[in-house]
Amino acid sequence: MLKAKVVGRVWSTKKVEGLPNGAFLEVEIDGGARIVAFDVLGTGVDEHVLVATGSVAAAYFPAPHPPVDALVIGSIDPE
Amino acid sequence: MLKAKVVGRVWSTKKVEGLPNGAFLEVEIDGGARIVAFDVLGTGVDEHVLVATGSVAAAYFPAPHPPVDALVIGSIDPE
Amino acid sequence: MLKAKVVGRVWSTKKVEGLPNGAFLEVEIDGGARIVAFDVLGTGVDEHVLVATGSVAAAYFPAPHPPVDALVIGSIDPE
Amino acid sequence: MLKAKVVGRVWSTKKVEGLPNGAFLEVEIDGGARIVAFDVLGTGVDEHVLVATGSVAAAYFPAPHPPVDALVIGSIDPE
Amino acid sequence: MLKAKVVGRVWSTKKVEGLPNGAFLEVEIDGGARIVAFDVLGTGVDEHVLVATGSVAAAYFPAPHPPVDALVIGSIDPE
Repeated sequence: MLKAKVVGRVWSTKKVEGLPNGAFLEVEIDGGARIVAFDVLGTGVDEHVLVATGSVAAAYFPAPHPPVDALVIGSIDPE
Repeated sequence: MLKAKVVGRVWSTKKVEGLPNGAFLEVEIDGGARIVAFDVLGTGVDEHVLVATGSVAAAYFPAPHPPVDALVIGSIDPE
Repeated sequence: MLKAKVVGRVWSTKKVEGLPNGAFLEVEIDGGARIVAFDVLGTGVDEHVLVATGSVAAAYFPAPHPPVDALVIGSIDPE
Repeated sequence: MLKAKVVGRVWSTKKVEGLPNGAFLEVEIDGGARIVAFDVLGTGVDEHVLVATGSVAAAYFPAPHPPVDALVIGSIDPE
Repeated sequence: MLKAKVVGRVWSTKKVEGLPNGAFLEVEIDGGARIVAFDVLGTGVDEHVLVATGSVAAAYFPAPHPPVDALVIGSIDPE
């Protein structure tokens, strides 16, 4: 998993079918790179999160698995 | 997913069997690297898109899944 | 697999359902990058470990496979 | 997929069982990195190709899928 | 696949269950990065090898697939 911070939301009206309910969040990974992760937890901007990438993100959803390759799996508790 | 901008199209006449209908689009990922993503949405050059990579791209298509490892899953709405 | 050293633990109270028992460990890969790996071995900080990444980490657990993409598969014996 | 140019062939006599008929081609990805891709198209040195990476390369072959993680899926047409 | 050279062996006494017979080899990929690959061929230090990474490495073994994400699939013949 990657530690990341949510920096924004991405909206897509024209998209493939079969995407689940949720949001596309742009996250900044520790180190600086940015990816877009799918979120089902209602995570907000500036939250620190754990992101799982690859097919495990799609497999979280019932079959047929949607084509998402990154998922927010949790918010990191403040220390 | 990766945010990217479509920069061109790639044509391949000599190719493996089983590839679905669609286009190979060359996209430039935020940061500069370029990959080729499969597109089923009729996406055009200069559109900003979300690209899912890895086996989830292949799994979007019915079995037997074609050997594609990147898929345009949506166009990013203008802000 | 990646050789890495455990540098801390990450706690997440708000998270997706279905995660197995275990810990999220932050590990520093040889070379400097940090990722978070799931641990079922009771590994402690400063231990040197082997981390497997990708869907093989999820597949270690019974179906339905949890959305984890990195797993500590062993501690490296001291030389 | 990655755009790449075939730069050579790799031969392996001592190898795991179950590899399909075809060739191991060393390809140079746009940008400079080199990987080895499996080829079933009879692709030659200096051809420009599309390479799919990851488990989709293995899944192109009938089960049990061979342990190949990169496949030449087509030659890029000259412009 | 990646071209790499075996540089050492990694021993792990405390590890997850279900790992097959074989060795963990540290390999140096052309370019300098090091990863650990599982080996079933009896490959020795200084041999040049092809390494497949990702879930195809695990899928080489009978189900339930072990959590290994890199496999030596062959030795590269000397030119």
